[in-house]
Amino acid sequence: MGENDSQKLQETAGLLMVYTGNGKGKTTASLGMAVRAVGYDWKVCIVQFIKGSWKYGELDGIKRLEPNVELHVMGKGFVGIIDDDKSLKEHRSAARNAYETALKKMLSNEYQLVVLDELNVAVNLNLITRDELEELVTRKPANLHLLITGRGASQWLIDQADLVTEMTEIKHPYQQGIQAQQGVDF
Amino acid sequence: MGENDSQKLQETAGLLMVYTGNGKGKTTASLGMAVRAVGYDWKVCIVQFIKGSWKYGELDGIKRLEPNVELHVMGKGFVGIIDDDKSLKEHRSAARNAYETALKKMLSNEYQLVVLDELNVAVNLNLITRDELEELVTRKPANLHLLITGRGASQWLIDQADLVTEMTEIKHPYQQGIQAQQGVDF
Repeated sequence: MGENDSQKLQETAGLLMVYTGNGKGKTTASLGMAVRAVGYDWKVCIVQFIKGSWKYGELDGIKRLEPNVELHVMGKGFVGIIDDDKSLKEHRSAARNAYETALKKMLSNEYQLVVLDELNVAVNLNLITRDELEELVTRKPANLHLLITGRGASQWLIDQADLVTEMTEIKHPYQQGIQAQQGVDF
Repeated sequence: MGENDSQKLQETAGLLMVYTGNGKGKTTASLGMAVRAVGYDWKVCIVQFIKGSWKYGELDGIKRLEPNVELHVMGKGFVGIIDDDKSLKEHRSAARNAYETALKKMLSNEYQLVVLDELNVAVNLNLITRDELEELVTRKPANLHLLITGRGASQWLIDQADLVTEMTEIKHPYQQGIQAQQGVDF
């Protein structure tokens, strides 16, 4: 790429990208996309819809990309899973905050790339409504690259997207009898 | 993760991991894996078997992860494709250098993660022999995480691997009539 290409990029259409599927690599690939964006000196905002979905190394590694990359850990974890009405209400409220933050960041014109991490999962758990998903997608500014991750992307989202990659798990250490370990995802 | 986990990681078995398939995301995910490794303060060595396979942003972004991450751009590009014996000889020689560097780095005990970027492609182009691939895999030190990327992973490699993710392209901007642009991969 020539030296003016970074500028040109911002004049090209921003893409709607989706990483889905049941395999390892979705969050990892979005981290990699952040690295690449930083290479262009872009500003990146990552909004996590499922708290706790990132490993320690991911959280710590991303700090190396500050201040270009901002991470907003929103939503709630799913360790205790949603087991009663009160818990459901709290999860919905946390997801709603994530949605509002995401929309605000997308519309701020401060970023070239916004990543909505595990949004598909939040939609499938009914913590984010279909209307909210559609609003996030349809209100994407033309020059913004938007990456939505999480298994179980809806057909509607796939239809809207410019780029969809499905990460399929062909083989996983658990299947091989390797002890559950940090080493897996690390 | 607790504070001793990073140390523990190095005591666990190192995994043989493969990112393959025709979709976007293989190199991107390996970049992300490097970010995560840096989060654990690991040392990472990436050996590129196909020069030119990385975009400007990827090359520049990875610099932000120095000195933990080392990138060795080896091999030759394939823009001019291999069209005569002399060219083939040069490509084989470059691939052989990449192989030797990879093996030396793997055995150096200096890294917790070594990435052999686009090795599968080099094998499919017969620039790396099946024997060389097998040697790289079988001589992996037990505590080293080794990640091999590139479309067209051989069944032998898949059989050996602990973790295999196939990145499948479901939709690509070119298909949508979006102009070929840096924005695609960016």
